[in-house]
Amino acid sequence: MNRVINNPDLVVEDMLRGILAAHPELRAAADNPRVVSHVNAGQKGRVGIVTGGGSGHEPAFIGYVGEHLVDAVAVGEIFSSPTAKSFADAFKAADGGAGVACLYGNYAGDNMNVKMAMRMAERDGIRVVPVVANDDAASAPPEEIAKRRGVAGEIVMWKVAGACAAQGASLDEVVSAARHAIESTRSIGIGLSACTIPAVGKANFTIKDGDMEVGIGHHGEPGIEVQRTVPAKDMAKRMLDTLLPDLPFARGDKVALLVSGLGATPLMEQYILYGEVADCLREAGIEIGFSRVGNLFTSLEMMGVTVTLTRLDERLSRALHHPCRSIGITVGDAA
Amino acid sequence: MNRVINNPDLVVEDMLRGILAAHPELRAAADNPRVVSHVNAGQKGRVGIVTGGGSGHEPAFIGYVGEHLVDAVAVGEIFSSPTAKSFADAFKAADGGAGVACLYGNYAGDNMNVKMAMRMAERDGIRVVPVVANDDAASAPPEEIAKRRGVAGEIVMWKVAGACAAQGASLDEVVSAARHAIESTRSIGIGLSACTIPAVGKANFTIKDGDMEVGIGHHGEPGIEVQRTVPAKDMAKRMLDTLLPDLPFARGDKVALLVSGLGATPLMEQYILYGEVADCLREAGIEIGFSRVGNLFTSLEMMGVTVTLTRLDERLSRALHHPCRSIGITVGDAA
Repeated sequence: MNRVINNPDLVVEDMLRGILAAHPELRAAADNPRVVSHVNAGQKGRVGIVTGGGSGHEPAFIGYVGEHLVDAVAVGEIFSSPTAKSFADAFKAADGGAGVACLYGNYAGDNMNVKMAMRMAERDGIRVVPVVANDDAASAPPEEIAKRRGVAGEIVMWKVAGACAAQGASLDEVVSAARHAIESTRSIGIGLSACTIPAVGKANFTIKDGDMEVGIGHHGEPGIEVQRTVPAKDMAKRMLDTLLPDLPFARGDKVALLVSGLGATPLMEQYILYGEVADCLREAGIEIGFSRVGNLFTSLEMMGVTVTLTRLDERLSRALHHPCRSIGITVGDAA
Repeated sequence: MNRVINNPDLVVEDMLRGILAAHPELRAAADNPRVVSHVNAGQKGRVGIVTGGGSGHEPAFIGYVGEHLVDAVAVGEIFSSPTAKSFADAFKAADGGAGVACLYGNYAGDNMNVKMAMRMAERDGIRVVPVVANDDAASAPPEEIAKRRGVAGEIVMWKVAGACAAQGASLDEVVSAARHAIESTRSIGIGLSACTIPAVGKANFTIKDGDMEVGIGHHGEPGIEVQRTVPAKDMAKRMLDTLLPDLPFARGDKVALLVSGLGATPLMEQYILYGEVADCLREAGIEIGFSRVGNLFTSLEMMGVTVTLTRLDERLSRALHHPCRSIGITVGDAA
């Protein structure tokens, strides 16, 4: 492992120090360095948006704290859930009296800690409603959707909820929009190489050179199948063969399309995949109404890509195009 | 090599197809697919900004075509200069009658092809003035600055020139601002692993695991020294030990700071380095007035980082904060 770090046990601390130095609009909670919020968080009368999760997925989760986006984030160790206390402190940082939507991904640790944090919030008189993302179509069959993991589709959920909250929606409205966004979203990933947690020093899973793992999870969770790596065109087809029938997406639909690298895959290759996915969607009679390409939700230096599709209606489309600004996503006019 | 590509000989074509599909504000020249311009390029009376270079550095160069940034780009094969014809066609796409500033990096192929393209432009009655970036402080000693390569400092040059052109400056004013920007800028990189050109299939240079190459070029050009990899804190110090005395930067200066990953280095590690560089600058009495962290200028899937510093005056600072929008950099208000 040859990396740009100091003490492998303190990579999260060191990263947070760098992020706070680079982004004066972000601040750590006074009594909890593992909670980072936007300077506008907690604005009176506006619904707060909180998320959280393990580190190592940057720009997720902290990179989606921003204007008209997430207000506060609970930061975990690499690939581990934040503590219940951190989620509870993030609720405090985000609350402006109108309640908090906690929009996070379906992982055992996060589920447990959010639940505990909600009990703490209740004692503090903060109303919190959770929405759990299950967009990873490869992580369980359609009839067991509640077992599915949350992945890059969470970005769509945060973006939509952030836009609604910014426009003065109530907690119930924000939660309903977030739920609608994630229920309209499906993701799938393909892994081409493993990644190494600095404190561990070696990969905790392997992908043989020349193989690809379809449906791999963001922490190396096993996918649907391992096969020899195919051209990008066939990767796109393979991913859509899972995604399209799952929601299902149909001819005439308009979608948001996110193509994310998993960390080490060059932007060039992410755009190659985007081109192939766009071709497949055109052939399927599906129109792209919003798109982003880049390292949106990663797994350290894993090689590979994810594709996320959201079926758009007017409400989701408007929310996605609403201006916002953060490390991970910026929407809006330059001039 | 396990990658997200189709035919390894057609990665640039396939990437361009994806970029054009994802970004309707960009378009290829009608008769030259290796020239991409912004829909606002060639606006009557506004100075045009052109750049170009080899592919594989994404988001550079094409990702800096945008509003109040670069108007048109000539796209080369991976790590090879675009043709003279492509530079000339980019001048045509960018020209609105007020002339074109060609802002590119100091590489033999680019120098030759820009020179030839300028002769073609002259015949077409387009006035083109070139500015060659030499910001890579590690690539030649200070007394041979004209031999130095251009690297991520070009982003500062494009940003400043784009802001000036957008505000109605003349060609001479834009060129003078670009020259001032790049002359105020120094960069240095550290490489931790090599990268593989898809059509070649194996790396054309090597970095031993556990070693770092200080001052490595964007195509694997040899650096100043190879040594065992040190902690991020010492990398920051090593890089600034070269950069600070070179311009020189001095106590009381205000600077722009760009930290870029070289492709495969996680954003987490880029922020760790940013934190260390920020600490060193504070100790040196140098204030950060503008900053960006991310994969700004890469080399395929090389691991490593670059640091770019620009000494700011009021004029450069204003130009850097001027709104702009592109794949590689966006500045501006969300709301």
